[in-house]
Amino acid sequence: MSAPHYDEPRSSHTLEQGLPTNSHANSPRMRISPAILRAPKQLSTPLRMSSTKVLTVDNINPQVVTMQYAVRGPIVIRAVELEKELARGANKPFKSVIKANIGDAHAMGQHPITFVRQVLSCVTNPSLMETGKFPKDVIEHSKAVLSECGGHSTGAYSQSTGVEIIRRHIAEYITKRDGIPSDPENVAISGGASESIRNVLKMFVTHGGGKKVGVMVPIPQYPLYSASIEEYALGQVGYYLIEEKNWGLDVNELERAYQESLENYDTKVMVVINPGNPTGQVLSRENMEEIVKFAHKHKLFLMADEVYQDNVYADNSEFHSFKKVINEMGAPYNKMELASFHSVSKGYMGECGMRGGYVELSNLDPDIYVLYKKMISAKLCSTVLGQIVMDCMVCPPKPGDPSHDQWLKEKTAVLASLKERARLVQKAYGSIEGILCNEVQGAMYAFPQILMPPRAVEKARSLNQEPDFFYAMQLLESTGVCIVPGSGFGQKEGTYHFRTTILPQKEVMKDMLARFTSFHQKFLEEYK
Amino acid sequence: MSAPHYDEPRSSHTLEQGLPTNSHANSPRMRISPAILRAPKQLSTPLRMSSTKVLTVDNINPQVVTMQYAVRGPIVIRAVELEKELARGANKPFKSVIKANIGDAHAMGQHPITFVRQVLSCVTNPSLMETGKFPKDVIEHSKAVLSECGGHSTGAYSQSTGVEIIRRHIAEYITKRDGIPSDPENVAISGGASESIRNVLKMFVTHGGGKKVGVMVPIPQYPLYSASIEEYALGQVGYYLIEEKNWGLDVNELERAYQESLENYDTKVMVVINPGNPTGQVLSRENMEEIVKFAHKHKLFLMADEVYQDNVYADNSEFHSFKKVINEMGAPYNKMELASFHSVSKGYMGECGMRGGYVELSNLDPDIYVLYKKMISAKLCSTVLGQIVMDCMVCPPKPGDPSHDQWLKEKTAVLASLKERARLVQKAYGSIEGILCNEVQGAMYAFPQILMPPRAVEKARSLNQEPDFFYAMQLLESTGVCIVPGSGFGQKEGTYHFRTTILPQKEVMKDMLARFTSFHQKFLEEYK
Repeated sequence: MSAPHYDEPRSSHTLEQGLPTNSHANSPRMRISPAILRAPKQLSTPLRMSSTKVLTVDNINPQVVTMQYAVRGPIVIRAVELEKELARGANKPFKSVIKANIGDAHAMGQHPITFVRQVLSCVTNPSLMETGKFPKDVIEHSKAVLSECGGHSTGAYSQSTGVEIIRRHIAEYITKRDGIPSDPENVAISGGASESIRNVLKMFVTHGGGKKVGVMVPIPQYPLYSASIEEYALGQVGYYLIEEKNWGLDVNELERAYQESLENYDTKVMVVINPGNPTGQVLSRENMEEIVKFAHKHKLFLMADEVYQDNVYADNSEFHSFKKVINEMGAPYNKMELASFHSVSKGYMGECGMRGGYVELSNLDPDIYVLYKKMISAKLCSTVLGQIVMDCMVCPPKPGDPSHDQWLKEKTAVLASLKERARLVQKAYGSIEGILCNEVQGAMYAFPQILMPPRAVEKARSLNQEPDFFYAMQLLESTGVCIVPGSGFGQKEGTYHFRTTILPQKEVMKDMLARFTSFHQKFLEEYK
Repeated sequence: MSAPHYDEPRSSHTLEQGLPTNSHANSPRMRISPAILRAPKQLSTPLRMSSTKVLTVDNINPQVVTMQYAVRGPIVIRAVELEKELARGANKPFKSVIKANIGDAHAMGQHPITFVRQVLSCVTNPSLMETGKFPKDVIEHSKAVLSECGGHSTGAYSQSTGVEIIRRHIAEYITKRDGIPSDPENVAISGGASESIRNVLKMFVTHGGGKKVGVMVPIPQYPLYSASIEEYALGQVGYYLIEEKNWGLDVNELERAYQESLENYDTKVMVVINPGNPTGQVLSRENMEEIVKFAHKHKLFLMADEVYQDNVYADNSEFHSFKKVINEMGAPYNKMELASFHSVSKGYMGECGMRGGYVELSNLDPDIYVLYKKMISAKLCSTVLGQIVMDCMVCPPKPGDPSHDQWLKEKTAVLASLKERARLVQKAYGSIEGILCNEVQGAMYAFPQILMPPRAVEKARSLNQEPDFFYAMQLLESTGVCIVPGSGFGQKEGTYHFRTTILPQKEVMKDMLARFTSFHQKFLEEYK
């Protein structure tokens, strides 16, 4: 078999069948671009060939056809192609591709935290601990973890929920963060937070028995949710974030979305992403209490995606965990079922490739927790090294430890630089004619709005593309800047956005903003 | 919420609903012990409490209730408890728990391969490469991989299918192994082979649209298959391995299983595990050709679980990959759709905790490959360090490289020791009265049959337990030896088996066999 291109091909009937605009009956509809669903290249297989195969586009799991994950969609695929073309010496109007499509800090030049990497080298190669070259706390940390690994090796399976000492450390970290006790038995470590999020969603699958369970997700949302909801044949119930209120949540809008969903779904789950992805807002305590009351009123299971909890930049913003809020609100809210997620991929470490994440489950029926553990056991366990990175995150050097000062210095520098870049991005986009950009209070993204000239909308439609997809592809082809069109995250009808990370290092960021500004001016000129 | 016990609770109606003996209509039925489905402890939640929760045993994804994964089931949970009791100084008739339940080599004392761990320490902590303490090939290997990681860091996401250079190395490894070209674009790296196996199965889910797709699996089988088939609401079509023919495959039995399955399922997939888990057989070339012809006749998609391909011990046995066999058989077999799986968890490395695996997809409709890549993209990528362990496996030191001799010595020693233990296990169990044990030709397991005294069967039934579960629990409680009852893997009606690994190191192995023999004699005495 020759290597097919990495893109999303669709025969037209499956395209139409599967469009989230049709399958998600309740508004706000996920307005995912048909251009994202369709391939930039033609299908490589004529239909007649499919018929000789056991597995074809016509009989594959239909949810696999319809699910989409825009963060790694056609724009990104084209960006990778462009990089290769440049490497082969192709003549382009730019010298490099700048990937602002994904929250991948190391790929954009952020350096790892020394303490984390010293521990990793010691736990993988324990003979290094005898060389006298590593600080005492690195060695103690490494030995403590290894002492609870099977055969004292990171090459042994852990329990399905993770190495016990690491779950204890996570529980201690949460306890300290919230001032509310956390039980290590309620913590399950996973290969990134994504895996835990998908595991929790999976518990709500009905397999055609009765109405689909509706899952409330913000619009715009992180496409992991729309992709997994589609894959699991759950029902996506979008609630709009209020752009004019810096992407805050409005209870009336939640109520509207919930009520409209009931016609099609048994809505039981509510996802909140705080700090927001792709929107960069940090929820106020007051807003969170309103959300909790809403969720309690309708007996919703809360999924709190809190992977950006260390990424808060705005002076007036502060991160509060949902666990803390429900507990401080007291009865009856403190008994609400809650799954909270965290990750080593974001924060100040940015260790995406390590795949470390966890879920803390609160107030679940104890039997469900048992079933959850059974469900994840068939996958054996998550990467032990990813778990150890998590351990470094929740159990970092303490004041007085030999590694503490360097660790603190590195951590502070990363967070300060992210804060600076958050402001730089907001200021730059905010000052461009025809672009609106909210404050980036937290997380790693801005989600600016493009005031799209009507002629550009027409042009895009004539190409059967969403206008923001058209814009993003033009931007990429003419400047090498790779961002993700807002239609991949969802947005209000008739509005157009894009998500950009704040991760390019400062010089690259300036270069990116200059390329963008110049492109945007020409674009306005062309379509005014 | 207080910490629930890690066990499988069932309210009686869900128990009956979900029993694989009922839901898998075609024989051979998976005879999974009700005792495995039921908790060793009572349910911790009275039913009235459930009603206050959003998510309960009564409304959770029903497949999560019915799926089982015996390798980490109640016997293992009890073994972990016993270890803790011993650590607290409890008085038991044994001083240690010996876990022969899972193929976890490092946990049983196998040492890691030095080259692998040196590379891991260098790629996690690149400053080590400047210390002059590492062999040149370790440094070159590490630098080559890092050069293709985002930002030259293992902390960056890789492509969803894996780091490109590692996929190239895998394809070169396969090409060399089989003498048949392999394309890196057809290789997808995953967090262990389990993840790839589950991804391939997921493509066949129908979500209630028409008949379930039937998946042929050997009986006995590795419970990842039964668990995943159940979780995905696919149809399990068991075909018996022939114990009297050293667990070989018989085409008449395949035909019987296939034909009987058609009443309930649209059977499209056939799983072959070679070398066998839990059965330890290595398929002959002739047998493989028969299987391929059978699969071609019925247009089946072949899933070849070949994770034990380096674990062949019998003098007359040799591993052949299904890819090689279908290609050497020529047309029309060389166009059959095939997914072949491999892992770093087995072989001579035994790096289970690293979570490195891959699938090579052959002869797929190119559109399916595109959809497969899209499907896995929402999970972002597998652990980069696990991928790098895979790179060490497929691209080890070459003759003349500074690390080569030590690598070869370590590899040879591990495989020789496994071979010795394979014979030791077979010989020991084979010489016990009332136990039958086939030759352990490969993999890491024996699957001996217990000729169960009728009074023991009665006793077990009176406790509502499967006889082999009863036996295994008695063995554990009185000797500390942890094995997995055959009912977790499936076996012919009226036969009783257990799976034991061959992984305990030699002295522990001797201790285990002595404990077992003594227990078995007493057991026979008691129930004769």
